[in-house]
Amino acid sequence: MRQSVRFEIQARCPETGARAGLLHTAHGSVETPVFMPVGTQGTVKGVGQEALEEELDARIILANTYHLYLRPGHETIARLGGLHRFMAWPRAILTDSGGYQVFSLSRLRKVSDDGVLFRSHLNGDAHLFTPASTVDVQLALGSDVMMTLDECLPYPASHEAAKESTARTVRWARAAFAHYDARGPVPNALFPIVQGSMYADLRRACAAELLELEADGYAIGGLSVGEPRTLSLEMVEATAPALPESRPRYVMGVGMPEELAEYVARGVDMMDCVLPTRNARNGCLFTSRGKLIIKQTQYKDDAAPVDPSCRCGACRRYSRAYLRHLFQAGEMLYSTLATVHNVCRYLDIMRQIRQAILLGTFPRYLEEMRSLFTTEPGPARPTGLAG
Amino acid sequence: MRQSVRFEIQARCPETGARAGLLHTAHGSVETPVFMPVGTQGTVKGVGQEALEEELDARIILANTYHLYLRPGHETIARLGGLHRFMAWPRAILTDSGGYQVFSLSRLRKVSDDGVLFRSHLNGDAHLFTPASTVDVQLALGSDVMMTLDECLPYPASHEAAKESTARTVRWARAAFAHYDARGPVPNALFPIVQGSMYADLRRACAAELLELEADGYAIGGLSVGEPRTLSLEMVEATAPALPESRPRYVMGVGMPEELAEYVARGVDMMDCVLPTRNARNGCLFTSRGKLIIKQTQYKDDAAPVDPSCRCGACRRYSRAYLRHLFQAGEMLYSTLATVHNVCRYLDIMRQIRQAILLGTFPRYLEEMRSLFTTEPGPARPTGLAG
Repeated sequence: MRQSVRFEIQARCPETGARAGLLHTAHGSVETPVFMPVGTQGTVKGVGQEALEEELDARIILANTYHLYLRPGHETIARLGGLHRFMAWPRAILTDSGGYQVFSLSRLRKVSDDGVLFRSHLNGDAHLFTPASTVDVQLALGSDVMMTLDECLPYPASHEAAKESTARTVRWARAAFAHYDARGPVPNALFPIVQGSMYADLRRACAAELLELEADGYAIGGLSVGEPRTLSLEMVEATAPALPESRPRYVMGVGMPEELAEYVARGVDMMDCVLPTRNARNGCLFTSRGKLIIKQTQYKDDAAPVDPSCRCGACRRYSRAYLRHLFQAGEMLYSTLATVHNVCRYLDIMRQIRQAILLGTFPRYLEEMRSLFTTEPGPARPTGLAG
Repeated sequence: MRQSVRFEIQARCPETGARAGLLHTAHGSVETPVFMPVGTQGTVKGVGQEALEEELDARIILANTYHLYLRPGHETIARLGGLHRFMAWPRAILTDSGGYQVFSLSRLRKVSDDGVLFRSHLNGDAHLFTPASTVDVQLALGSDVMMTLDECLPYPASHEAAKESTARTVRWARAAFAHYDARGPVPNALFPIVQGSMYADLRRACAAELLELEADGYAIGGLSVGEPRTLSLEMVEATAPALPESRPRYVMGVGMPEELAEYVARGVDMMDCVLPTRNARNGCLFTSRGKLIIKQTQYKDDAAPVDPSCRCGACRRYSRAYLRHLFQAGEMLYSTLATVHNVCRYLDIMRQIRQAILLGTFPRYLEEMRSLFTTEPGPARPTGLAG
């Protein structure tokens, strides 16, 4: 078994699937369950690394292989000492394989068992991603957790199409691991991705096949593609128990603040989503009392902070009225403050969840979250990963 | 004589007109000569107030009456406790009168002795600025230094047109002061603005008339409107000696980094300009060795900071290669880091200038700056104030 990263479970919730742990990486230990802010192009939009490190205390962030491969190029980043040094971020980094972006952003895709041929969304140049090449790109970036190339299906997909696509994802994962193992021991972990659209049988079968890879962690992908939220949770519920208990489980591209504890309750250790950062820029702030839409007239003269119970830099210094003014005026400082606030909110929720698991009070915490936010089942926004 | 702000001269250069002083305001003492970063809409674009205060140690910033009057409105700001509280900036603020923006941004202007009728650049609504109303707006904002309404002429202007316009600016200044004095003592200073286009005789005559107002400080306006840089300096050279020695002199809308000491040598105590902030966003970084255009290919693999001798947060942590990547990718963090750097550069230059005056070494400093930057005389960019 590989030991590029080491996962240590510190506590288990006796009533749910929740667990608290530590993911030990070459760039520090990450307390789990963890939410990873999305830094698509090597930057969490609007927030500097100082703030991420010192004020928000993020231990791991996500970056996108597709974007960094196209610009500035993984070879440039490798020459500059890897992504950590390039972006001056000393803590852990997870990179996706680029699969999601190839299927959502690029043009003229041609998928075969070899990989996927696509045209750059920047300049139309043709590129080929193979299971092996995406490992090499991520090794050049030097990410602590790398992902295998996978095929992302739109929602809805027929069982037949999903079965065929999932089989390809498994073949790609095997090819990626063959290449990865041939490189000898590296400090970079490689996680395969369970696909299977919204079919529990396909997901369980996919998980069973990926288990043979004895990976250091497993991801559940292909969610947040437009399906109802209840279905996303169902898929995780079907998949997580089929994954090794001793390995971290990562659900890609979720979720709303009130959903974080739901995923954790189903045995999830890692999550990422563009929601806190993208919604911040669009004027939606998450508070301990729900959403706050900053452009609303009611905030024009409101001297209170966005969330009086929040300790972030935006809430400590600025009023809703000032943030609303900055938003209306199209000022950059709005996006910075809003992003700092929303990321702080997400990381605070994760710290509360972790603390509750360690103290044995997670079931009560989950009940409280459910009563605070009566989540109406309905179509989830297609959120994806592209921050 | 009014004493809304108090100007204390600490040292004079024996060979040039330079002086070092302190401008005491209700929101702290400002070390002069000073460069004021421009915060058009109540924010220095891309930089939070924490960074301005703690990292950059700016003691005074500029905000634009025209912009804040239109959005969010001076009455909203007054209800929220004034501009300092609204933007969470505890230090000094200077506001211009809005005259410059009315003449550069708004549509359908109609100028009379009463004031100027204009249409908002935001929604076309009609508004009237009078000498008295712009004082009232600035009192509602609570700025430490307010400016009288003035008429800004384009360059070039005929002597006749300039004479007529300058006479109106003087009449407006008298009307503004009559209104200001009728309000009784306030902690907010009011500075009149010397106009006169590029005619030294008009500027001297304008200064002589404004002297009768016995203001707490005087501004030189109507520069940086497209004239050659040598002409801007000539106009300041003609005007500054005609202004009271014991009062601060403020040149509006200048200048390039290498010009700052030139203005100081001519007796200038205060300056502001959008150059450091706007150029930062456009990819032009000012360093101790001159301009650095970040998009250039030579910086693609450059691991050095923008300016190895700079102590700013951008230079302490990030490389040219990373900044170039952020710029090329259109990422907000680029603008934040570049602005922090350029503002730091300007404020550092001003601190060096002040130190040199206090130590009696300013003439040598001026010579060094001149040999480092051989300024070719040529048309200055129309920079203006609109940050």
